[in-house]
Amino acid sequence: MTTSFEPTVDVNRNILEMEYAVRGPIPQRAAELQEQGRSVIFCNIGNPQALSQPPMTYYRQVLSLVEDPSKIQRERQLKDVFEENPLSSLREEDFIPDDVLDVSANIIHMMKTGMGAYTESKGVRFIREAVARFIDRRDDVERIGGVKSVPEKIFMTSGASEGVRFVVDLLIANENDGIMIPIPQYPLYSASIKRAGGVQVNYYPDESNDWAFNREMLQDALTEAKKVGVNVNGIVVINPGNPTGALQSRQSIDEVIQFAEENQLVIIADEVYQENIYAGEFISFAKALGDQKVPLFSLHSISKGYYGECGHRGGYLEVRNPPKVRGSEFDFMDLLLKQASVNLCSNTAGQVLTYLMVSPPAEGSQSYAKFVEEKHQTLSDLCEKAAMIREAFKQMDGVECFGKTGAMYLFPRLNKLPEGTTDFDYCMALLEETGLCTVNGSGFGQRDGTHHLRIAFLPSKSLLEEVLPRWIAFHNRYVRG
Amino acid sequence: MTTSFEPTVDVNRNILEMEYAVRGPIPQRAAELQEQGRSVIFCNIGNPQALSQPPMTYYRQVLSLVEDPSKIQRERQLKDVFEENPLSSLREEDFIPDDVLDVSANIIHMMKTGMGAYTESKGVRFIREAVARFIDRRDDVERIGGVKSVPEKIFMTSGASEGVRFVVDLLIANENDGIMIPIPQYPLYSASIKRAGGVQVNYYPDESNDWAFNREMLQDALTEAKKVGVNVNGIVVINPGNPTGALQSRQSIDEVIQFAEENQLVIIADEVYQENIYAGEFISFAKALGDQKVPLFSLHSISKGYYGECGHRGGYLEVRNPPKVRGSEFDFMDLLLKQASVNLCSNTAGQVLTYLMVSPPAEGSQSYAKFVEEKHQTLSDLCEKAAMIREAFKQMDGVECFGKTGAMYLFPRLNKLPEGTTDFDYCMALLEETGLCTVNGSGFGQRDGTHHLRIAFLPSKSLLEEVLPRWIAFHNRYVRG
Repeated sequence: MTTSFEPTVDVNRNILEMEYAVRGPIPQRAAELQEQGRSVIFCNIGNPQALSQPPMTYYRQVLSLVEDPSKIQRERQLKDVFEENPLSSLREEDFIPDDVLDVSANIIHMMKTGMGAYTESKGVRFIREAVARFIDRRDDVERIGGVKSVPEKIFMTSGASEGVRFVVDLLIANENDGIMIPIPQYPLYSASIKRAGGVQVNYYPDESNDWAFNREMLQDALTEAKKVGVNVNGIVVINPGNPTGALQSRQSIDEVIQFAEENQLVIIADEVYQENIYAGEFISFAKALGDQKVPLFSLHSISKGYYGECGHRGGYLEVRNPPKVRGSEFDFMDLLLKQASVNLCSNTAGQVLTYLMVSPPAEGSQSYAKFVEEKHQTLSDLCEKAAMIREAFKQMDGVECFGKTGAMYLFPRLNKLPEGTTDFDYCMALLEETGLCTVNGSGFGQRDGTHHLRIAFLPSKSLLEEVLPRWIAFHNRYVRG
Repeated sequence: MTTSFEPTVDVNRNILEMEYAVRGPIPQRAAELQEQGRSVIFCNIGNPQALSQPPMTYYRQVLSLVEDPSKIQRERQLKDVFEENPLSSLREEDFIPDDVLDVSANIIHMMKTGMGAYTESKGVRFIREAVARFIDRRDDVERIGGVKSVPEKIFMTSGASEGVRFVVDLLIANENDGIMIPIPQYPLYSASIKRAGGVQVNYYPDESNDWAFNREMLQDALTEAKKVGVNVNGIVVINPGNPTGALQSRQSIDEVIQFAEENQLVIIADEVYQENIYAGEFISFAKALGDQKVPLFSLHSISKGYYGECGHRGGYLEVRNPPKVRGSEFDFMDLLLKQASVNLCSNTAGQVLTYLMVSPPAEGSQSYAKFVEEKHQTLSDLCEKAAMIREAFKQMDGVECFGKTGAMYLFPRLNKLPEGTTDFDYCMALLEETGLCTVNGSGFGQRDGTHHLRIAFLPSKSLLEEVLPRWIAFHNRYVRG
């Protein structure tokens, strides 16, 4: 029976109006070009393994074994057989190191119900314990004192995005509730606030001062928001920055903490690029906070760093000083747990990779040297590639790039775009002409009258050597009309 | 610097008020008892591998190899070596079958960027193509005609829960928008509607008629809702049922479709238990729909069936006849894509397992016999265990259990609870006395004045043999005072 039924529905306006530029028109055009056989270099997204950054051998060896634990025992058998009969084309390095076998067996043992069972909604207990130890080690808590991380306040999440959703959805209680976000920002934040029906309150890090924060700029944003009746209850900080790539100083971080304290705000600290540091030191908000009582939600992920396991969707949310809930006997942590429960749990492969991220092979173990070598190779490659692109900027008319390089991005300012053109036009033309896919600055937000783009410094050096001269030529032609 | 700052926040009332019984007080008490050394049998959740159901060997062999593809080549080498030098304790069955190696290599090839890269937000294209072929095969589209499934309308999701969230969040545009759900229901639905700020509209399948649906009961619910100003725009159906386990007939399904058509509703069909059929036939809503134009959102998952890969969080959402969006040029599919984009993509391990779920080993392949044997073993075990529990009910005073057995659950009605006690009291006492952890019927909703419980028939037969007599004894003592 065919009918003429043509149903029409009203839909949630927040989702209708939500924007998400990183997967917007420019990448879509890039995909079209690629389908037509054009060679496209995808620098629009921090997706390292899609641009041939290899995964860490150690991580994948372990993950492979925990997915099929029968192979642990078989590998031990194989090794015995080959020790007795070395006559074959196989060499010692074709076998899986003993420490990998031991670590894999231990993970299976500690997980109790294996990879195929739902875990606790917060995530597997021993993995959360390992995360807590990692945080304390990273922040040097033993030596300098400070507050220890506890597994009860850690949630394993599907990438960092899920943790952001849990927190933002809870913090937006009314439609005039707002959260401060840096401009430019990673569109996950504007989208999450919009979806939750809240107000995005922009603050403007100081570009020419390496995108630093100070209380004055933060206070300005808050004052403006209050004037129009917005009730601000939190502030997002991304360090190292996305899209700016900028690594923040201790002073910058302290300014945010003091501002949050004075204004009773919670801090959402996106620190997923904490291992993408090429010079200088990463200082976590947890470390800078010490025993101050400002609520802090810190996010980390397996998608970035030197591992780049984006596809596996793993990460964690760590909570410090959970705020009291007004007019309710519920604890904030209980509410986060309830949200996590509706999803049942985050995926086990992502949880195991997070465990490996926070538990690298021990110094002296069989896997150690190779692990350190691979890590060093990936990070030094990234560092060199960022430097190559920065060099190219010097040959482009009116391009300035601020910030101490971190993360996987550069966010150059385009000072000399022809009258009437936008950075969107520029990026689209750059794509059409050179195959280089970047994201226009307006996709992240920027000060009125300025133009930028974000480029992920992920393509291979040889690819960069080939495309950068063409970009320089394109640029100078474009801006000089 | 220590301060006396004690921040308090307002939180989203919808999340504050949302309930989620499956991980509520009874399972929490069960966890406590277990920590105290008591032996607890967790029948509160459909988590088969936590109750020693083994994973499918074929799935895990493939997943293990795609996580570490270097092992594909090595396995081929090993096989060559052993063919030449068979002198060892290893037997042929200690090696990975060739078809597994070929399938794994093909997955890596088709994924292009491997397991560590973000995929398209909808999921890997060739996996969505395989899902579409599976749906057409399942629904016998070639033979009986009907509408073919297309990969463009399939989204890979993190379990089925994520697909539900995408759809429900979109459909709740205003606070008087409602979605019809069966009572009893899986609390994911009530929680998702609550979180989105909409109205849960209850309808009551006919328990004594095997939980069947008919237009009258559906119409009653709709009429009641309209009276109080609720704008109903969708209906959720779970087949086979959760918590009831009941498999629905073609007639029951057709009643829902006709009702939806007459009332311009979209259908959300939760079919995650479609392979948990022990007698009779599963009929999908897509098949029953044929070329009728009712919007349909069908959900499937890797968590159930004979595979039970809950921890890996994989599944899909298939859309048919997406509704028009009132007052917007946006397409409903674009809005779903935008939601998926904010999460970037679902995890690759879950996507690969979904691929394997819809692409079992070919008849005649090396892995085929073992695969079929394992599948049969798991399903026949489940069938026997359900029958054992049903037998026990016959010896319990005033226990009736309706519905054609499907899924992993039985939902008996407790007709003779002592005056003043609830099914919550009963389940808590059952746990304390026998270690059996079930969920009270009120956690799923039930007709006023009735009492039920849900038990997942997952524990081993020997465990059931041990606990069922104790349950019977407990029960008869409890109801007879």
